Amino acid sequence: DFAQLDMHRGLRRGFPEVVFGQGKTAEQITQIVNRLSERNERVLVTRLSAEVYAQIREELPDDAVYHQRPRALVINRANLVCRPGILVACAGTADTPVAEEAALTAELMGNQVERLYDVGVAGLHRLLDKLPMLRQARVIVVAAGMEGALASVVSGLVDAPVIAVPTSVGYGASFHGLSALLAMLNSCSSGIAVVNIDNGFGAGAMAAMINRLDER
Amino acid sequence: DFAQLDMHRGLRRGFPEVVFGQGKTAEQITQIVNRLSERNERVLVTRLSAEVYAQIREELPDDAVYHQRPRALVINRANLVCRPGILVACAGTADTPVAEEAALTAELMGNQVERLYDVGVAGLHRLLDKLPMLRQARVIVVAAGMEGALASVVSGLVDAPVIAVPTSVGYGASFHGLSALLAMLNSCSSGIAVVNIDNGFGAGAMAAMINRLDER
Amino acid sequence: DFAQLDMHRGLRRGFPEVVFGQGKTAEQITQIVNRLSERNERVLVTRLSAEVYAQIREELPDDAVYHQRPRALVINRANLVCRPGILVACAGTADTPVAEEAALTAELMGNQVERLYDVGVAGLHRLLDKLPMLRQARVIVVAAGMEGALASVVSGLVDAPVIAVPTSVGYGASFHGLSALLAMLNSCSSGIAVVNIDNGFGAGAMAAMINRLDER
Amino acid sequence: DFAQLDMHRGLRRGFPEVVFGQGKTAEQITQIVNRLSERNERVLVTRLSAEVYAQIREELPDDAVYHQRPRALVINRANLVCRPGILVACAGTADTPVAEEAALTAELMGNQVERLYDVGVAGLHRLLDKLPMLRQARVIVVAAGMEGALASVVSGLVDAPVIAVPTSVGYGASFHGLSALLAMLNSCSSGIAVVNIDNGFGAGAMAAMINRLDER
Amino acid sequence: DFAQLDMHRGLRRGFPEVVFGQGKTAEQITQIVNRLSERNERVLVTRLSAEVYAQIREELPDDAVYHQRPRALVINRANLVCRPGILVACAGTADTPVAEEAALTAELMGNQVERLYDVGVAGLHRLLDKLPMLRQARVIVVAAGMEGALASVVSGLVDAPVIAVPTSVGYGASFHGLSALLAMLNSCSSGIAVVNIDNGFGAGAMAAMINRLDER
Amino acid sequence: DFAQLDMHRGLRRGFPEVVFGQGKTAEQITQIVNRLSERNERVLVTRLSAEVYAQIREELPDDAVYHQRPRALVINRANLVCRPGILVACAGTADTPVAEEAALTAELMGNQVERLYDVGVAGLHRLLDKLPMLRQARVIVVAAGMEGALASVVSGLVDAPVIAVPTSVGYGASFHGLSALLAMLNSCSSGIAVVNIDNGFGAGAMAAMINRLDER
Amino acid sequence: DFAQLDMHRGLRRGFPEVVFGQGKTAEQITQIVNRLSERNERVLVTRLSAEVYAQIREELPDDAVYHQRPRALVINRANLVCRPGILVACAGTADTPVAEEAALTAELMGNQVERLYDVGVAGLHRLLDKLPMLRQARVIVVAAGMEGALASVVSGLVDAPVIAVPTSVGYGASFHGLSALLAMLNSCSSGIAVVNIDNGFGAGAMAAMINRLDER
Amino acid sequence: DFAQLDMHRGLRRGFPEVVFGQGKTAEQITQIVNRLSERNERVLVTRLSAEVYAQIREELPDDAVYHQRPRALVINRANLVCRPGILVACAGTADTPVAEEAALTAELMGNQVERLYDVGVAGLHRLLDKLPMLRQARVIVVAAGMEGALASVVSGLVDAPVIAVPTSVGYGASFHGLSALLAMLNSCSSGIAVVNIDNGFGAGAMAAMINRLDER
Ligand SMILES: Nc1ncnc2c1ncn2[C@@H]1O[C@H](COP(=O)(O)O)[C@@H](O)[C@H]1O
Ligand SMILES: Nc1ncnc2c1ncn2[C@@H]1O[C@H](COP(=O)(O)O)[C@@H](O)[C@H]1O
Ligand SMILES: Nc1ncnc2c1ncn2[C@@H]1O[C@H](COP(=O)(O)O)[C@@H](O)[C@H]1O
Ligand SMILES: Nc1ncnc2c1ncn2[C@@H]1O[C@H](COP(=O)(O)O)[C@@H](O)[C@H]1O
Ligand SMILES: [Mg+2]
Ligand SMILES: [Mg+2]
Ligand SMILES: [Mg+2]
Ligand SMILES: [Mg+2]
Ligand SMILES: [Mg+2]
Ligand SMILES: [Mg+2]
Ligand SMILES: [Mg+2]
Ligand SMILES: [Mg+2]
Repeated sequence: DFAQLDMHRGLRRGFPEVVFGQGKTAEQITQIVNRLSERNERVLVTRLSAEVYAQIREELPDDAVYHQRPRALVINRANLVCRPGILVACAGTADTPVAEEAALTAELMGNQVERLYDVGVAGLHRLLDKLPMLRQARVIVVAAGMEGALASVVSGLVDAPVIAVPTSVGYGASFHGLSALLAMLNSCSSGIAVVNIDNGFGAGAMAAMINRLDER
Repeated sequence: DFAQLDMHRGLRRGFPEVVFGQGKTAEQITQIVNRLSERNERVLVTRLSAEVYAQIREELPDDAVYHQRPRALVINRANLVCRPGILVACAGTADTPVAEEAALTAELMGNQVERLYDVGVAGLHRLLDKLPMLRQARVIVVAAGMEGALASVVSGLVDAPVIAVPTSVGYGASFHGLSALLAMLNSCSSGIAVVNIDNGFGAGAMAAMINRLDER
Repeated sequence: DFAQLDMHRGLRRGFPEVVFGQGKTAEQITQIVNRLSERNERVLVTRLSAEVYAQIREELPDDAVYHQRPRALVINRANLVCRPGILVACAGTADTPVAEEAALTAELMGNQVERLYDVGVAGLHRLLDKLPMLRQARVIVVAAGMEGALASVVSGLVDAPVIAVPTSVGYGASFHGLSALLAMLNSCSSGIAVVNIDNGFGAGAMAAMINRLDER
Repeated sequence: DFAQLDMHRGLRRGFPEVVFGQGKTAEQITQIVNRLSERNERVLVTRLSAEVYAQIREELPDDAVYHQRPRALVINRANLVCRPGILVACAGTADTPVAEEAALTAELMGNQVERLYDVGVAGLHRLLDKLPMLRQARVIVVAAGMEGALASVVSGLVDAPVIAVPTSVGYGASFHGLSALLAMLNSCSSGIAVVNIDNGFGAGAMAAMINRLDER
Repeated sequence: DFAQLDMHRGLRRGFPEVVFGQGKTAEQITQIVNRLSERNERVLVTRLSAEVYAQIREELPDDAVYHQRPRALVINRANLVCRPGILVACAGTADTPVAEEAALTAELMGNQVERLYDVGVAGLHRLLDKLPMLRQARVIVVAAGMEGALASVVSGLVDAPVIAVPTSVGYGASFHGLSALLAMLNSCSSGIAVVNIDNGFGAGAMAAMINRLDER
Repeated sequence: DFAQLDMHRGLRRGFPEVVFGQGKTAEQITQIVNRLSERNERVLVTRLSAEVYAQIREELPDDAVYHQRPRALVINRANLVCRPGILVACAGTADTPVAEEAALTAELMGNQVERLYDVGVAGLHRLLDKLPMLRQARVIVVAAGMEGALASVVSGLVDAPVIAVPTSVGYGASFHGLSALLAMLNSCSSGIAVVNIDNGFGAGAMAAMINRLDER
Repeated sequence: DFAQLDMHRGLRRGFPEVVFGQGKTAEQITQIVNRLSERNERVLVTRLSAEVYAQIREELPDDAVYHQRPRALVINRANLVCRPGILVACAGTADTPVAEEAALTAELMGNQVERLYDVGVAGLHRLLDKLPMLRQARVIVVAAGMEGALASVVSGLVDAPVIAVPTSVGYGASFHGLSALLAMLNSCSSGIAVVNIDNGFGAGAMAAMINRLDER
Repeated sequence: DFAQLDMHRGLRRGFPEVVFGQGKTAEQITQIVNRLSERNERVLVTRLSAEVYAQIREELPDDAVYHQRPRALVINRANLVCRPGILVACAGTADTPVAEEAALTAELMGNQVERLYDVGVAGLHRLLDKLPMLRQARVIVVAAGMEGALASVVSGLVDAPVIAVPTSVGYGASFHGLSALLAMLNSCSSGIAVVNIDNGFGAGAMAAMINRLDER
């Protein structure tokens, strides 16, 4: 069988198995979503291309919602009381799909999410103007491509942990996100940890996990 | 002047500026430590070589303690009530200096730290035997070199956030920690974020920041 | 002439020359397959795109079978008694095409193949539940992308040799399979050897060669 | 504690835990070797520098033997009946330390090992002259640096599986063994699998595991 | 003006400027070819895609010939007496377009070219059978992808200089020809020099330059 | 909101925010251009694909001009008196789109630009013939792909600062501009500084900033 | 002869040939410095190790001054009236040797240099406090290691051109300065150009060349 | 046995086996040199460190000569009539050890060698002044580090084949010779082929092989 769904992941880890949409056939995704949807109130498929979605939309549960730019399919039947505390920031307009993937994920995991987009370091006042908003956050996700400097700058201003997501926005020597990734890993500010290039989902999930810690 | 010490970092970020010991002269470190020590109850110097320490030990405050393997200099005059919740795990004996840097940092930042060392995936039972200890932790630091698989395996078993530190332990195609770094960034388990290769300090600081969140 | 078929490879190495389907024109493949098929009971073409196959299917021998996802063309007129002993495991559903290439190859080379798919380390119990199956195998092929941790984990549980195939499944810092490749090469478990990224064929062939050793 | 020795590895995997000598202190190695030596007939420490060995030789069991060039410490009190079948070949004289590490490992694991050294492809007749010896082997380890071509050439001549070990022999664009590693991974001959650069131990262990398969 | 044609290159270097077809618009190529063709008996355009050729074929001189697989456009009105001495070999059928680019170039530069294709090291006898042909050549071009071993093996058998062309044939860790490039640069046989990946043109031109040396 | 336009960038830095066209949706670009165009006399969008431009051209201000090969959209209603002093040179015809991006940018920023295209080092006389023109320039932009040698050669001949732009022109081991980038960074001539691969815009902007220095 | 000194470089380029101290023997440096010193009022040797300097100091002209941390040897007999306008900033104390190499070079080339050291982005206020000083500069050199973010942040605040020097300060995934280099090349702020890692000399020389432009 | 000397290499390839000095023990080198010296009039050991040479000089044949900077050991009892035709050029003084290795090799192989050192492109006139010397050469070796531009520039001026040797001279983004290597591989001038970084021996041997072609 092509998929051994990890059915007790919800119990063990607080959220059901998330489906990696890339590299699966349309049939595989349809089957997996339907099986998960029978047993879980929430389903998330990441990196699902618009083409595959178009092919399978009829066969999915009616309440499945597809988000175009972050390429995420979401089913949410849970009656969540959302916790405040997560801020998702990004450096440029081109980083918004990754930032949105993070925000959607964190919301589905039970959080209220503030968004602060297009506040890259080339025009620093856009960020400094929002210091109160930054300082109120309990966990901050920062998505940035190119030189990825926003993560260090934000972290230096606050005492909240920062989850940095390098994006593949850029060209030439950005090497598809490598420049931002290395910059974020080498931050001179502490309190930053990094997820994979373009991994908005991972950043959102990490932020959610951190934000709910005091529930334990 | 060679150093503009960031004297309100303690206020702003919860812990005073940490000194990056590498690439500084003996005189610079002496001066910086003494200046910081006058105004702060806690001082941390990371990546301080044994050679430089030997040269300057007489000129440092009497209560400065040097930890050989993690190469960290610590002054701690604070009367901290330490919070439980942080677990530092590592894959092999050769990873312990990095793990210790993480543990020391988190302790200095006011945490009780559990240690679980040499539990690499080649002998999985060593880890599985400690499931209760793993599941009790609120934040877990995992240090591993070579293929860095321990981070994914630990994360899959718990619902705590994992801070993964790749180490440069290995040879050949480990490329000084690159293999572990890439593995950790590409984890198929969510709830993992990564710091720089051998950056035990960064992992410990991130864990500390997360662990104190509910104080806010 | 564009192809010097190595007609005594079957004698020398136990299996006829395998055709590398990529980078050849439709005409070249047609000619080569037909020439091989005249002198051999078994023919294998790897990495044959669906487009090229569609163009040439009419010109191929009637008993040629095309396997879509592993992109393999197979002719098998041999009356093989298949040997048990090979297990092919993979970490995620997206790795199955590579795993299937390995399985098909090993089958064509005279082996019974057990399949254990989608047992990645994020949900370890899926693997641990199959310990008896793992321990019965004489040779194990493990295909995994992303952080490629499955190879180390499997190897640590058994005393059979593991052939690890990194797959290009992933994105960002997986660098098209590099992360899994490096992880597998740096395994802290011994008894693992690695083939090229996405080289299911090579893994299957190696496993077959090992499994028939006691016939010599 | 810095080391959780995996004491049932011998039972589970057929050989006790092997000690990775690099990155451990002299005290750690001494303690680990002595603990292992109490419970096992065979002990192997790899990548143990001559300097560390010199410091600790007095504290080790009397029957511990240090092999200078492969940097391996061996204790062997087992009364092994060695199986023939393994051939270790290498391309140049500078590759012999890695080849010896493979040979020693395979011998300690109960095999007779044939050696065929300095038969690189620049003088092919040196290899072709030994065809009978090559064809008699059941498993072949090939160690080569620089362009690493020997693995492909050997494999093309035999029907035995080849374990290829790239070595770091070379300079400039060999990038410390990367050229040989890539060459071996991309072999146009099937029946080759690769271990880490300079990992003679891993190659020897894999060969030993394969060679004993028909005992199962 | 977009092109400063180097009109005395023929005088200075023995062959007129060769047009790099990639990255030029259809109009630019048309104009350049027509201007060159007015003043030179021979014109060569390399890396000209079939699409661009289709657009401009009507506007080119009537005697321009397009070679599909090596993507080369050739005009040859010179009455050359061709010198024997060049052999172009390649490892696999997929390398033939690069090998043909080399052969065409050398022919246009006034040489007779022998071809020896698909003689990769996985079936060494195919090469050894042609030793007399190899030994008769004055200069040898060897094109190979994957592990690129053929260049070393050929060079070790002859006393002629070898121009090695790595090709991008392969997948995974061939990294688009990097594996073959590194292998060729690190050859343990002397008398090999290397051109860029897939640069059949450069190899053919170098071979031609060498082969005419005694005319000086 | 997806875009926080940095409306006082013109005041602060001498030129309004430039729009990065890549990775934005057609709607986003339309909105941003229209908002910028209301408040600024000059607007520049870089890396705008012909496809997106075709979709939105009707919705843009009438005086917006699209430059096909450099993929730049320009609005210029300023009545600039242009300063002489900038020379843009490039090595080959295929580098002209990048060179044009630099020239357009510098012109829009108030400069007269001289162009000297297709003067690569393979035919050095083309460059040496223009020495007077080179020596008259106050700032020189040099765009080159492949081995990127033109920047060093030009710089060695003049006493003006050189802004070097590596281009992605090339193939194989040019690694999409990496070869030219590294060459330019490692120039043995001083007075060279480098911008990102294919970043004609950045080079033009830097040249403009330098050329206006004596206005301050 | 081992050195062809470029004796008219001073005339042609405004400053005599600078000696690259690395990789030359003590004798070679002595000879070159003495020959240059006879004909020039200013001599600069870069990257001269303290060891070599100690060997040759007696044989150098009496007015030669060695600067330990930037490893530069300077002779300056010129009666320069220095121009104001250059600011050299750096991110951390460990970057000061590179910053000093830049400052020394610019001074020797006839400039007054302001220094602003240890103002990295982790404590942004240290930089923002100096806005007037930043805005007064005509050209700014920014040296930074680790994530190299300072260059972008500075550039975004001023309208002067920024010469960015990545330094090798850092560890792990800084890859000896690669992270800072890539960050600087991918800056989202325009008006930045980059020199080689640790190339303080190149940055200082470029700044000097720009600062004297209006003298022409 | 650790060395299978290829005793008929002289016959087959025109020069006896050359010894790779790096990575061999003092004893191995002594033995190999003595065995070769008994049967051959010429012996060459490359990359022999001064330390090893000092240990073994007494045990070598009396007529063995060690060349310090190119680290080559040479025995030459042949009565060679040397052929003119080879020119070895290099870019800077720091490249001379590699250039000398090439020159020594070519001389030992029976050639007269012209030397043209320190003629890098930063002072082009040094090269252009020697055009007649360049144009007289039949084969040219060009050694250069940093941006490696000299090879392209020389090649564009002559009709002789150029063997380019990248050197590891440089720092930072030269990545130990990678920048020069890539530049040379991507030359826009044809008639260039490249050997490994710092491989003066390989360049000299290739030049010698080419230069003797008309003897065949
Ligand atoms: N998927 C594959 N990966 C690596 N090598 C292959 C693959 N398929 C076939 N080969 C080998 O490629 C060689 C044939 O190359 P060619 O002459 O190009 O057909 C044979 O020796 C096969 O062993
Ligand atoms: N396939 C090729 N690879 C490398 N260089 C080439 C190739 N084809 C042409 N050239 C060179 O590219 C230069 C022309 O570049 P361009 O001005 O862009 O046409 C000429 O000097 C040719 O020698
Ligand atoms: N081991 C470390 N890794 C990364 N950053 C560090 C480390 N130790 C100190 N730092 C940071 O480095 C900065 C100080 O750099 P410097 O001015 O060079 O001392 C502080 O902001 C610290 O947060
Ligand atoms: N630190 C440096 N980085 C880069 N180039 C340098 C440096 N110092 C000197 N140079 C250049 O190196 C060349 C001299 O090289 P060489 O002949 O080896 O002394 C001169 O053209 C200098 O401009
Ligand atoms: Mg924006
Ligand atoms: Mg252990
Ligand atoms: Mg799955
Ligand atoms: Mg040898
Ligand atoms: Mg073939
Ligand atoms: Mg041109
Ligand atoms: Mg500081
Ligand atoms: Mg010089």
